Amino acid sequence: MQKYVAEVLGTFAIIFCGTGAIVINQESHGAITHVGIAITFGLVVTSMIYALGSISGAHFNPAVSIAFTVARKFPAKELLPYIISQLAGALLASATLRYLFPSNELLGGTLPAGSEEQSFVLEFILTYFLMLVILNVAYGSKEQGLFAGLAIGGVVLLEAMFAGPICGASMNPVRSFSPALVSGHLEHVWLYLVAPTVGAVAAVFTWQFLTRSVVAPKVA
Amino acid sequence: MQKYVAEVLGTFAIIFCGTGAIVINQESHGAITHVGIAITFGLVVTSMIYALGSISGAHFNPAVSIAFTVARKFPAKELLPYIISQLAGALLASATLRYLFPSNELLGGTLPAGSEEQSFVLEFILTYFLMLVILNVAYGSKEQGLFAGLAIGGVVLLEAMFAGPICGASMNPVRSFSPALVSGHLEHVWLYLVAPTVGAVAAVFTWQFLTRSVVAPKVA
Amino acid sequence: MQKYVAEVLGTFAIIFCGTGAIVINQESHGAITHVGIAITFGLVVTSMIYALGSISGAHFNPAVSIAFTVARKFPAKELLPYIISQLAGALLASATLRYLFPSNELLGGTLPAGSEEQSFVLEFILTYFLMLVILNVAYGSKEQGLFAGLAIGGVVLLEAMFAGPICGASMNPVRSFSPALVSGHLEHVWLYLVAPTVGAVAAVFTWQFLTRSVVAPKVA
Amino acid sequence: MQKYVAEVLGTFAIIFCGTGAIVINQESHGAITHVGIAITFGLVVTSMIYALGSISGAHFNPAVSIAFTVARKFPAKELLPYIISQLAGALLASATLRYLFPSNELLGGTLPAGSEEQSFVLEFILTYFLMLVILNVAYGSKEQGLFAGLAIGGVVLLEAMFAGPICGASMNPVRSFSPALVSGHLEHVWLYLVAPTVGAVAAVFTWQFLTRSVVAPKVA
Repeated sequence: MQKYVAEVLGTFAIIFCGTGAIVINQESHGAITHVGIAITFGLVVTSMIYALGSISGAHFNPAVSIAFTVARKFPAKELLPYIISQLAGALLASATLRYLFPSNELLGGTLPAGSEEQSFVLEFILTYFLMLVILNVAYGSKEQGLFAGLAIGGVVLLEAMFAGPICGASMNPVRSFSPALVSGHLEHVWLYLVAPTVGAVAAVFTWQFLTRSVVAPKVA
Repeated sequence: MQKYVAEVLGTFAIIFCGTGAIVINQESHGAITHVGIAITFGLVVTSMIYALGSISGAHFNPAVSIAFTVARKFPAKELLPYIISQLAGALLASATLRYLFPSNELLGGTLPAGSEEQSFVLEFILTYFLMLVILNVAYGSKEQGLFAGLAIGGVVLLEAMFAGPICGASMNPVRSFSPALVSGHLEHVWLYLVAPTVGAVAAVFTWQFLTRSVVAPKVA
Repeated sequence: MQKYVAEVLGTFAIIFCGTGAIVINQESHGAITHVGIAITFGLVVTSMIYALGSISGAHFNPAVSIAFTVARKFPAKELLPYIISQLAGALLASATLRYLFPSNELLGGTLPAGSEEQSFVLEFILTYFLMLVILNVAYGSKEQGLFAGLAIGGVVLLEAMFAGPICGASMNPVRSFSPALVSGHLEHVWLYLVAPTVGAVAAVFTWQFLTRSVVAPKVA
Repeated sequence: MQKYVAEVLGTFAIIFCGTGAIVINQESHGAITHVGIAITFGLVVTSMIYALGSISGAHFNPAVSIAFTVARKFPAKELLPYIISQLAGALLASATLRYLFPSNELLGGTLPAGSEEQSFVLEFILTYFLMLVILNVAYGSKEQGLFAGLAIGGVVLLEAMFAGPICGASMNPVRSFSPALVSGHLEHVWLYLVAPTVGAVAAVFTWQFLTRSVVAPKVA
């Protein structure tokens, strides 16, 4: 039970702080800047990994949970409860932001700046590398594991920094779905459900290839 | 005795550098920017934790000391000396800033940009997650403990970044009280005494729930 | 085989995210800012070192591979496959950016802001210190090794930050060659092939001098 | 001999990159921003500590070497060679910047924005806390030592960030003396020689008090 609460709390923190940075940047006429928004997204992921990682594994993202399941590193029967917990945390975050900033229109939701195709490709690549880092630091050397929070938060920070102006740098279905649902702007949300999930799963196959020779000899 | 001096020094550094960044940003017509102020607040917390953590535990914040006491992780008889030390460090910092910048009006104090209710809810949530991170990294796995300074400073940085323009992102009663007292602007200071303290104590109950199953079996 | 794929992936990520930040900054009328571009370059290097370092050694840069070979820390017969992998990853990154942003002219390529001599000296010094840090953290104390990703990514970030406006802060032949080739702007590319390589090799001799007394007694 | 070369190289890197950021910010009409300059100063210190710390102890600063000597943690007969090495590295850095940017007037030198008294007090406090962090992480717990580069670079970054617009945030006699000498602007340089040195020595006495009870019982 504790792990589900940890997923609710961590996902709440990520969506509340991250999309909250976008909302408050609008309310304060740009005081936070795009650089500040990207730093917020990266550091909240780093902090939540160090705080809650040992309780729930710190997924906070349905695309990550699905990819771990495909990689057979996460029990399939836990997948639905995890996604429900993540969705609950994210929706609670968007609802709290709506309560605090009732006049804000998009609540930090993601919209493609150009074509849907352009943002789809970007979200696929962003989440592919995010998941590749997650898998390699989570199941690599001890040193890699120690720095997991920094490496994963660093990827989120840099991807939000460089790709945010085009696709919003969601990398997380509930991060896009929650503000879209609460604000009533569901028009492009499908791409943020599909592209990150496909990208994360694609990373699993790359990671399985990268680590095959390391694992195989032990079995033989 | 050393631990009280460490609390004075660490709290002085946090208030002097953090509110000093706000003051000098005003004096230099915005050279530091809001992003620079948030980075200052986060890094001074990180640095003081690595420098003084093994001497005093690196509270530097009455809300944190009260929450540790409620969690029975800090002796009740030390609570008053710690709060007095933190207050002394913070007042000394605001007085030094007043001496260096006599014409500055607010000395980096916190004021709600909108309604008191809006800032109260924000300060509650900010300090709740700050304390949740503190408790989980301080009493979690060894890896979590190693990265305590980064995780806790990271939370302060990101929360100052995204919420600063609305509520000032105090998260610390003496961080708001000292500039308010020295500059004579005590009008909203009650909310920065109450909301962070209530938020930090609320995090204790969440943390006790999150770690219950881990601790209980050892007792049985 | 896995190590070559890791070099392709890591170099792709560095060039795609780093030069992508420059491209998207132009497309978004400066939303990312020079500070955000430098942060992107530094963090993608840090993340890829923690993710892929144990698979390929995380070179991602022909100047680094050549310098390791000169230092007899990397087998000469692996040099060509590594450089081909790095070039493949970099070209794939520039081609993907061309596909996503067909109207962008330079694709994040590097051009000297002043004289070629000025940028040559800067690129030499930048890569000299980058390689000096790489060698000292890779073959120094255990503590140094743990923090390799942070120290090396930190050097890339700070050098991109302060020298970017003058020389582009390439420090990596394929980081300059790929956007130059794909965009058809090869006019100054020779200096970004030569200066980083010479700078990295110069660092090897300094490092051999710095660590001589430490190593020699063990042999005697 | 190696340790002197390491001090030359590390001090060169800090002064070249740090004051170079100020010079290039002027040459590029503010592209780096004050935030970028502070990040450059902090990260170059962090990187040089992880790269060269095990060779020379990573002082790079006469105020730090003098304070270590006062603390009886550094042999007095090494003090002069260390200061000469640091001065050589710093002068070489300023001379290289003069060669690269011959029309720049101040070469990144520090000047008080207000009164000399104001900047003297600030430089005293800045270097006092810098040295307090250095002593506590260098001679504290193992965890503190691991994170020395991050804690010390973090202090430099945040102090450059918040105090830079008023006093230049030198904290290092050779960081101010070298650009002042090479550019011929020695008018306020005395305060940057005296205040950091006095501040660093003052930190030694605080640190001796803070750690007395920990050390004393072992002797008795």
